[in-house]
Amino acid sequence: MSDRTRLTRKPERGTDDPAVLHRLLDEARIAHVGFVREGSPVVLPMAVGRDGDRLLLHGSTGAGMFLAARSGIEVSVAVTHLDGLVFARSAFDHSMNYRSAVLFGVATPVAPGEKEHALKVVTEHLIPGRWDEVRSPTPKELAATTVLEVPLTEVSVKVRAAGPGEDAGDGEDHSVWAGVVPLRTVADDPIPSPITGSSTALPRSVRAFL
Amino acid sequence: MSDRTRLTRKPERGTDDPAVLHRLLDEARIAHVGFVREGSPVVLPMAVGRDGDRLLLHGSTGAGMFLAARSGIEVSVAVTHLDGLVFARSAFDHSMNYRSAVLFGVATPVAPGEKEHALKVVTEHLIPGRWDEVRSPTPKELAATTVLEVPLTEVSVKVRAAGPGEDAGDGEDHSVWAGVVPLRTVADDPIPSPITGSSTALPRSVRAFL
Repeated sequence: MSDRTRLTRKPERGTDDPAVLHRLLDEARIAHVGFVREGSPVVLPMAVGRDGDRLLLHGSTGAGMFLAARSGIEVSVAVTHLDGLVFARSAFDHSMNYRSAVLFGVATPVAPGEKEHALKVVTEHLIPGRWDEVRSPTPKELAATTVLEVPLTEVSVKVRAAGPGEDAGDGEDHSVWAGVVPLRTVADDPIPSPITGSSTALPRSVRAFL
Repeated sequence: MSDRTRLTRKPERGTDDPAVLHRLLDEARIAHVGFVREGSPVVLPMAVGRDGDRLLLHGSTGAGMFLAARSGIEVSVAVTHLDGLVFARSAFDHSMNYRSAVLFGVATPVAPGEKEHALKVVTEHLIPGRWDEVRSPTPKELAATTVLEVPLTEVSVKVRAAGPGEDAGDGEDHSVWAGVVPLRTVADDPIPSPITGSSTALPRSVRAFL
């Protein structure tokens, strides 16, 4: 049995490999953070960064402040990459290729003395190299910043990376095209802000996206 | 004040426009579904489709079955599109352009008699035109399928679509490039499955992604 067949037969699989988890998180820009508010579930998108064995979450919305006001709140954090659409010969067998991590833990605000470090980690995670191109945060800005951390201790990682289930004797109409359409995120041309001079060179952090 | 300035001054805004909500949902392939299990939050990615004024959710994981086993379970469902990275001249003012919907409601399994319709809606939502290219579900397949529905009644939509906050007198170093790097999802070349003949033409549903 080839690796490909093996993948096809068991297309969805969990993995405990920390390298898979770390890469998946390192490629993420948004995480979906779930918590319980007055007995009801709430899910919010937040910016994400990884700092070793903890996940950092950054958001400035009202509900983000709800989270931040707690000394610790139980959360579930999901990070998902949709890598492709899986075309089968039956409607039922259509699927998606994806990598997902679902984390469970307690989110706590990063300590004041660690805030600048945490903000740098999130900024560099989202836009590598940007931190040194721009003005650092002032004490007032840091005071207005909240970053939450969740330890990467209880995580479920699932990966589907395979074609559609099929075999020569499956009774389907094999003249129908089956396969995968891979999906990925790309950057379009940068749009300068109104007061950015037209002769201002694109910095390295922007060029890295092109 | 121009629209652009207005957007820059109030870059994050809610909207009650159902057209914005519908378009945002119609472009989504994955939703993050949060619920409470034994008092703790859980967030899972699920495939998504919109059927008029209800959101349909489809997933086959174990926890999806947890959801499906309930006659009704309170959920929060988030759909987020990351449209761009916002580069400012200070670390603090970096941001992201996005469109997000956060829905609150009770998820219930679609009635057995409606399952085929619901599966068709989700399939056509994810891959327009595919339903008529492939074999329809058998009664056995439908019995093994669960689709959840959530009414689109309590939804919060937020959109940020603007450059970085800036003005001529903001004290920042204006020789630093600021602006937006737009992001979008693209499809790569389709990969045929092992038993798809090399002469099999790409169907219309696949070509639509290219």
